[in-house]
Order: sequence, then C-alpha cells, then structure tokens
Amino acid sequence: MMAAPAAALGVTLRVLVEDEAAPAAQVVPDSRVGAARDEAAIRELVSAPHLADALTFEHEHVTFEQISAIQADGVSVQPPPQALLHAHDKLIMRRRLTELGVPCPAWAEVTTIEDVAAFLAVRESAVLKTPTGGYDGKGVKFIRHADEAAEWLAAGTLLIEEKVDFDREVAALLARTPSGQVKCWPVAQTIQENGVCAQVIAPAPNLTSEQHQQAQDIAVTVAEGLGVTGVLAVEMFQTEQGFVVNELAMRPHNSGHWTIDGAVTSQFEQHLRAVLDLPLGDTAMTCEVAVMANVLGSERAELVDGLEDVTASDPGAKVHIYGKQVRPGRKLGHVTVAGTAVDTTWRRALAAAAALRGRDQQ
Amino acid sequence: MMAAPAAALGVTLRVLVEDEAAPAAQVVPDSRVGAARDEAAIRELVSAPHLADALTFEHEHVTFEQISAIQADGVSVQPPPQALLHAHDKLIMRRRLTELGVPCPAWAEVTTIEDVAAFLAVRESAVLKTPTGGYDGKGVKFIRHADEAAEWLAAGTLLIEEKVDFDREVAALLARTPSGQVKCWPVAQTIQENGVCAQVIAPAPNLTSEQHQQAQDIAVTVAEGLGVTGVLAVEMFQTEQGFVVNELAMRPHNSGHWTIDGAVTSQFEQHLRAVLDLPLGDTAMTCEVAVMANVLGSERAELVDGLEDVTASDPGAKVHIYGKQVRPGRKLGHVTVAGTAVDTTWRRALAAAAALRGRDQQ
Repeated sequence: MMAAPAAALGVTLRVLVEDEAAPAAQVVPDSRVGAARDEAAIRELVSAPHLADALTFEHEHVTFEQISAIQADGVSVQPPPQALLHAHDKLIMRRRLTELGVPCPAWAEVTTIEDVAAFLAVRESAVLKTPTGGYDGKGVKFIRHADEAAEWLAAGTLLIEEKVDFDREVAALLARTPSGQVKCWPVAQTIQENGVCAQVIAPAPNLTSEQHQQAQDIAVTVAEGLGVTGVLAVEMFQTEQGFVVNELAMRPHNSGHWTIDGAVTSQFEQHLRAVLDLPLGDTAMTCEVAVMANVLGSERAELVDGLEDVTASDPGAKVHIYGKQVRPGRKLGHVTVAGTAVDTTWRRALAAAAALRGRDQQ
Repeated sequence: MMAAPAAALGVTLRVLVEDEAAPAAQVVPDSRVGAARDEAAIRELVSAPHLADALTFEHEHVTFEQISAIQADGVSVQPPPQALLHAHDKLIMRRRLTELGVPCPAWAEVTTIEDVAAFLAVRESAVLKTPTGGYDGKGVKFIRHADEAAEWLAAGTLLIEEKVDFDREVAALLARTPSGQVKCWPVAQTIQENGVCAQVIAPAPNLTSEQHQQAQDIAVTVAEGLGVTGVLAVEMFQTEQGFVVNELAMRPHNSGHWTIDGAVTSQFEQHLRAVLDLPLGDTAMTCEVAVMANVLGSERAELVDGLEDVTASDPGAKVHIYGKQVRPGRKLGHVTVAGTAVDTTWRRALAAAAALRGRDQQ
C-alpha cells in the first residue's frame, strides 16, 4: 500500500518479497525474492543499483543484529534498530514504557510456574504473552491457573499481564521523523473479533477532547521515548481510570488503513515522508467519520471475484484488495466508507465488506 | 496514474510503453516496450499470458484500423474504435456533434485557400486546426488572412473554426460503461496559459445550478451520441449565449486530475471501472473546492529534487510527480490543494506548484 504514494511522490521503491506472488511484487516493479532474515539479501536490496535513501519494514520479522549490521554499513535504517527492539520484544517494551511513566497493565517477567502463581495470587486471571513473534491474537493466552503456563514456559521467559477491564480499545496513530517532527492523526476506535482487528472507526466516537489529547500525549511520549521514526500505532485500552497501553506497531498498521480514504495524508504516504526525513503531511480528516472494515477470509476462489458485488452494493465504498491467496480468517482486503453519522457509516462499511467477502459467508 | 487504483481494486495492469524509462514502467511490473502503432505488440499485450478483460488507452496515438482489427479478434476495446475516431479526427468530431445538435463554434472543412477566404469573409479571424495529431496548442493556429493557411493546406484538409468570444473555459468530465451507466463529476474551470492547461478549479466558481446542468447534459449527449466508454472530458467555452464545445478527450484527462484528491472516486479508478463494465463509483467531492496546478517545466535536474521544498511549503498539498525527464514547458507533475475558499485554495496550489518546480523559476 506504500506503492501508490511512492509513485505520486516520485519515490522509487525496492522491496524484498517472500515469493514472486507476494502482494508487493504485484505492484512494485523492482521486487526481489528473498527471506526477511537473509542479511545478504537485505544488503543487496539497499545497495544495488545504488545506495537506498532509507531501509524500512512492513513487519517485525527482522532481527536486531541484522539491521544493526546494515545500519553500521552507513544505511539509514528507519525506524532504527534500537527503537524496533521494543516492537520485537514485549518485555523490553514493557520495561521501557514503565520507565517512561506510560500507563501499562500490571505486568511481570515470568520464568517459572512459581512466578506465574505469584502474579495470579492477587487476581483471578491473567494474560500470558510470548515476548516475540505474536500478532493477531497469536502468542497470547488467557489463564486462570499457573499450570496453564507450563507448556509456554518450557520455551522460555514470558510476559504476564493483568487482564484489563476496559470499556473499549482505541489506537493512537502518529508519524515521527528522524529530525523529530511528530504529527498525530485523530485517535480511532478499534473493534476486535477473536483477537483480530475487524473494524476501525475514526475518530473514536464520544471521546472528549481531553481524552483525545491524553491518548495522543501517550503516543507521543512512546514515540519520543523509544526513538521511533516512521508510523507508530499505539493500541490502548480505554478504562474508567484512563488509557492503558496494550501493543505497539512501528509501521503502517491496520488501525490506520482508514487514513487512505479519510485523511489528507495516508499513513503510507506519511511513513515514506517520515523515513526519508521529509516534512510531514497534514493529518486532518477529509470527512466527518470514516469506518474501515476488514475482509477476513472468503468463500470465493479469489477476493477480486467480489469486485462486481462490492461496487454494485455501494458506489461510495473504497475497496482495497490485497492480492493474497484466500485462507480462512486471513486479512484479504478492506473497505472504507466516509460519512457523517457513525451508525450509518458503520453499517455501510460492514455491508460493503460483506459484499466483497461474499454475502452468504459474513 | 491508473496503477494506484488498479492495485486497490485488485486489477492487474499490462502496459505498452515507449521505453523502459517511461513513467508507467516505473510503477507497473508488467510493462512491455513497444510502439503504440505496432499492432503485433498490442496483440501480444492483450493476449499473453491470457486474454485481457479490456484494452484501453492513455493517448490517441493509435489508429482506427489497428484497434478495429484487435476488436475483431474478440478483445474488449474500450472506448471502442468507432468512438475513438471522433477523438482522433476533429473533422469527424465536428460533423457528428453538429448532427447531435451539440453547440459548436461555426466551422468548416477547408481544402483550398478559397475555402479559407470564404470562411474569413464574414469574420475578422479564425482558428485553423489540423484534424489529427494536435494537442496542448500544437496543430492550432489563429489566422486573419487566407494565405496564412497555405503551408498547412499543402499537407491536407483542415478544420477551420470561428474564434469564440468566451468568458472562460470549463471541462465537463464523466465516465460511461459499455452497459450505459453514466456518472458526471462536478464541472470544473480550466485556466490555460499559452494554449496549455495550467490550473483547474473544481467546481467551476459561480456557475448557476442551471448552467452546471447544461454543461453536464452536453457531455452526456456527446458520450451517448458517440458511444464513448471510459472517461470522457468535454472542454467547453462558456459564452454569454451558453456553452460551446471546444475539444474532447476519451481518457482520463488533465482537467480531471483534481479528482484524485478531491472526489470520492478519481477519474483513474472510474476509468478502470468503466472499461471493465463495473458499476461506477461516487463522483461527489470530498472538499468544498479543489485546485490543481500543473508543473510545466523546471530548472531542477529532476522534479523529485523539489520534494523537500514542496512538502515544507504546504503540508496539505497533494504532490504528484510523473517521473518524466525535465524539458521546457513539459507537464512534469501537478499539485492539488483541497480547501474551502477559492482564492486561498488557488493561491496555495500555485505556491506549492512553484515550490515543486523551483521558486525562482515560476
């Protein structure tokens, strides 16, 4: 999704893709097949035919050591390895956020069943997380008894967190440049289904301007405290006591897809501007409310087979098909609707996503 | 500029480009080098690796015979050759528009100096046009005396038109599908400098709703009468007596670039929907006023060298750099600003275009 703004800005992309059928390879002429953990492939990517202005990432499956080595070669790595560490390892993230005074759930580093039991002694249940590799609900487990942690503990140290009693989830999205310029988009509400982001509403309905400011302030503290560059999504729980940080993503994020069709500058354009240390674009919305609905799985052979149905269902729905093979529950695309009232806009987005996915299957 | 919406819609593009450095080749993975008039190259483009759903065009430099032959092979050619004839040949266009009762300047087909003299007998001056091949002011000449036509007449039959006394120029943009669905965008004002489009303001300021409807009705009559599919731009003169059609373009057109950043559906997405006979998208504006300013030539080595200046000058300016080599007066890119008041929005667009082009040279 960075290809479109890159073309408009005259920025030439080179991408490393898993295979020739990868979504990025379908839209970027200079795509090269290689593993994200293949340091030689990354080195070739940034250096030939000439040194790239910046190296950036669309996922966290790179190692600190690799990209530190590439940074040491004189390549501008954005976000820098020191910042990415916090996105790679949730224990490092929790330690640093706590140092910064950022509100977090009660948490502990646990290596034994006894550690887990001690954490559970004062609460009925907890959330166990593998420090690395988890996403979309993977690597996260709710437990009530310490022995439920045994299997995961055998693989290494874990993060344990209190189960936060929240009203809803929101995401504060911003971008920061190496020079230190920061711009926030309006805070959005995220709606999860089975641990996966299903819909996003921007701006988050019924947020007071004070709450809105609090959420943005937390995100800015995180960005500056961790030295993040590029787009940062801070996923938070909204509770009666205020906001509590749940997860971080140091890249354009699902919670910000609405910006493509609902803001002056999309998160993808802003990420490019940020990692190239260009002045950031206006983050104002171009509509009163935007609702993004993910298409998770489909009974269709290919999602693009739903193009006629979705365009017929709502001429104002903005359709985004990722060119991925259909698999159950996989994020295959999304639809964004810009409108005025939350209720009707949300219903339109859900209906359009259902039409794209296949009406019978939603 | 069709690459971005194609990616979002899951539509795979194959393009025929003049050379490997062509703008389209910079953003479309499956680009093939070949001449637009090479019928074998077009046949290969539409047939391999599998038959394309549609063949369409971004300029008029194809011949009726070629694309008729390709249509005869069973390829969906959109717009069809019979419609494109009117964009290729201004004499054919004038004859058909006159048959349809569409308001045109007084015109005549001239083959001799005597024909030209007869046309000039009742007026002080006239506009001489080569029927084919003209654009951006090329192939158009103002004359006062019949002998000024001698050189061009030696090359063949010409079109002669009265010089219309107009208040301003407007463009009515629409898209039409093979199934007959038509959607119009708001009519825009175009501002020409030295025969080249310099700025576009949408909607055209101070147009009454009746005038707006008249201009759109003319465009719809043209689209339906000529059997146009895809995007059609009808450039008109606004006079005290009403609108008079000047030129047609059967493709996404400079007068519609504002739709990328100022309308729910851009002309590029709509063209794809139309030529694939998909339901058309919403053409409503996402702002009160949009102003597009072309960047014509630059003193910079490459226009992208102005990226820092333009992003610093206006965080809300939407920048479009075409990846073309710099040449004097060449359309190298454009900037669109969405705003509320015409005056300030126009000034912002001009300032941003100047910043991109290089401030000293504007």
